[in-house]
Amino acid sequence: MRLTRARLAPLLIIPLAAAGADPSARVVLGLAAIYVAALLAGEVAVRLGQPAVLGELVAGVILGNLPLVGVDAFSSIGTEPGIDLIARIGVLILLFEVGFESTVRQMLSVGARSLLVAVIGVAVPFGLGWFVSSLMLPQVGAETHAFIGATLSATSVGITARVLKDLGRSRTDEARIILGAAVIDDVLGLLILAVVTGVIAAADRGTAVSYSSLTAIVAKSIGFLVLAVLAGLAVAPRLVRWSALFRGKGAAQAVSLALCFTTAYLAYWIGLAPIVGAFAAGLVLDSAYYQPFTDRGDQPLEDLLHPLIQAFVPVFFVLMGMHTDLRVFADPAVLGLAGGLVAAGIIGKLVAGFGAGGAVDRLVVGVGMIPRGEVGLIFANIGLGLTLAGARVITPTTYSAVVVMVIVTTMVTPPGLKWAFGRRRES
Amino acid sequence: MRLTRARLAPLLIIPLAAAGADPSARVVLGLAAIYVAALLAGEVAVRLGQPAVLGELVAGVILGNLPLVGVDAFSSIGTEPGIDLIARIGVLILLFEVGFESTVRQMLSVGARSLLVAVIGVAVPFGLGWFVSSLMLPQVGAETHAFIGATLSATSVGITARVLKDLGRSRTDEARIILGAAVIDDVLGLLILAVVTGVIAAADRGTAVSYSSLTAIVAKSIGFLVLAVLAGLAVAPRLVRWSALFRGKGAAQAVSLALCFTTAYLAYWIGLAPIVGAFAAGLVLDSAYYQPFTDRGDQPLEDLLHPLIQAFVPVFFVLMGMHTDLRVFADPAVLGLAGGLVAAGIIGKLVAGFGAGGAVDRLVVGVGMIPRGEVGLIFANIGLGLTLAGARVITPTTYSAVVVMVIVTTMVTPPGLKWAFGRRRES
Repeated sequence: MRLTRARLAPLLIIPLAAAGADPSARVVLGLAAIYVAALLAGEVAVRLGQPAVLGELVAGVILGNLPLVGVDAFSSIGTEPGIDLIARIGVLILLFEVGFESTVRQMLSVGARSLLVAVIGVAVPFGLGWFVSSLMLPQVGAETHAFIGATLSATSVGITARVLKDLGRSRTDEARIILGAAVIDDVLGLLILAVVTGVIAAADRGTAVSYSSLTAIVAKSIGFLVLAVLAGLAVAPRLVRWSALFRGKGAAQAVSLALCFTTAYLAYWIGLAPIVGAFAAGLVLDSAYYQPFTDRGDQPLEDLLHPLIQAFVPVFFVLMGMHTDLRVFADPAVLGLAGGLVAAGIIGKLVAGFGAGGAVDRLVVGVGMIPRGEVGLIFANIGLGLTLAGARVITPTTYSAVVVMVIVTTMVTPPGLKWAFGRRRES
Repeated sequence: MRLTRARLAPLLIIPLAAAGADPSARVVLGLAAIYVAALLAGEVAVRLGQPAVLGELVAGVILGNLPLVGVDAFSSIGTEPGIDLIARIGVLILLFEVGFESTVRQMLSVGARSLLVAVIGVAVPFGLGWFVSSLMLPQVGAETHAFIGATLSATSVGITARVLKDLGRSRTDEARIILGAAVIDDVLGLLILAVVTGVIAAADRGTAVSYSSLTAIVAKSIGFLVLAVLAGLAVAPRLVRWSALFRGKGAAQAVSLALCFTTAYLAYWIGLAPIVGAFAAGLVLDSAYYQPFTDRGDQPLEDLLHPLIQAFVPVFFVLMGMHTDLRVFADPAVLGLAGGLVAAGIIGKLVAGFGAGGAVDRLVVGVGMIPRGEVGLIFANIGLGLTLAGARVITPTTYSAVVVMVIVTTMVTPPGLKWAFGRRRES
């Protein structure tokens, strides 16, 4: 192209920046803002006796809603794909690390109780959600009740995993029951979503739903989890042992992260949440495998993961807070239904805690299952896109009520778990 | 929208993946591939007595050129914005850590020698580049000679910084002279680019170049560096000391990374490379400031940075290798000019090593200044976009020769530095 004065002017002021515009510059500035906000708010939370993650969530809510009072400086952070990527990698590393703190044997020892908690925690909130919906939205059809029930049945384990770490409780039986139940919930969530959308679609077409394809989904998911754990148990110790033959100091970390990321991708590919794969990868690894590394003076894997968690994980929770639009709380039409859904969502998961049996603190397990996080939102988003006989299954008002339910169940969990654990210590 | 069978079919197979398509899944799979490739190739390099980074570069070259033999599985890694982001964050953390290993006082003690190395290392390659260009491209005008000279004057410090770390030599006087000269080169590069483009534009318009705006660029860049270091020296110790009052364990890391990223952004904003800011941030920090953290049992900052470097930095070097298109080596028309430019580029920087004086190994300094990396490519890209009297300043063939020069100068540096250091030990 022709070199004109207009083209050259900016070049003369900032030549390199204009020449090789670097999209990462805005991302790292956003990360710096997130680190400072998370540090300050986390400290306030800790001094108030709360888990640090509550502070990070609140910091995010404040940063994300500053445009409401005319401050737009931080709003681009919430929509920056690079920040979103760091956040998603963060929750993978968090679940990997939480999985690493337990073994497959320990998970199997609580397996039956996890299954019971998961099944109750899906069935009761689904029923309660249907009931609240039919009570407060008498004008809509059963498909909407079913969809609202489905959003209430979800469990988002990121918050609970982080709170358990903040409180130093991630190696307790309660923690393992919650994490196991959350993994099972992810499989059940796939099934419910497939059933509900399948039934609605069949009704819309006037045909019957295909049960064979539903069975295939569940079989595939369960098959993946079983295979991943079996293959992991066979391969992971050898992989880590081989990697100790490498002279480079980074072998333990490189092999572990590669395993975590690959399994996360496979889980995603099969239709599960990537964090399920990351958790499974952590589960099959055992700190004993890393003995050759620590024997030669390398840092243990926990110490290597710690700085990565510090660098990635707060980004996830601050961003989760930033995506909270406080304006949904201002609509009275939304708040009535939202109140009902919040009550149904909390009561339903507290009931699930009874599935954990008498040997552990059932209230802790129930509270740990409460947060819906992004999983509930994904369900509701699918409902927004479905129609039956020309009518929307989930209207924007109903969607806003679901958003309120997700926000409240997510925000009550850190103080709720803190209180539930403290109560047990006093008694 | 209406729910049709076609819309529903994929939903029934992978409901969650279809609903919340997760762009991070492909990124983490790419990261896993990069970690494994970097680990294997780095190990081969180390066993052959070479720095690990040479293996990472070669691994990248192989992955990036597999499409030439019909294997496309890895080619998306090289164009994935998320991987590029991780790579760019990686080189920031690398330069921050390298800066952290030196103090401002140590840098000032080699400052005069750095300045001399930088000035010689810009002037001699510029002159040699002009000479080679006028010899081999007699048909083109002086503006092309000037532009080729400018691309030869650049220095890309990422490779050298990494090799110095791989060899355990990053705390030597030679390392400090090289790093200081690279920072000065970045300012000189801004100046040369502004002068050359300004003169070409003025000639194209038939007017004289504005020297006041050129002076402003240099004044702004130098002013930024001086201000950043002075402000950093005043503020950084206090910031770190204050952050020790925080109860959370992540305060030292959060404050340090926030400082690194903010300064990198400011450098970018002023027109310098972000890594210059990251290096300056590391320079003003001193491990002594972190005493309160290590006293209470926290890991020292070096140990916190180490896993981050392992997670981010290999991505930068593998990606740098992937962006190498081996086809440019197949064009005889390109290779003649390229050979001349490589010779000019290497000799010019070796001469610059003499600016380091007799107290240090001048050959090590000269070899350390050789790599052109992405900075040379940015210059050449600007030339591709400039025309004078309707003719392109840099033709695609000339550009390919510059690319070959960049590849060769980058790839010879790891073995070259290893050899230069080894030679000294034997003598």
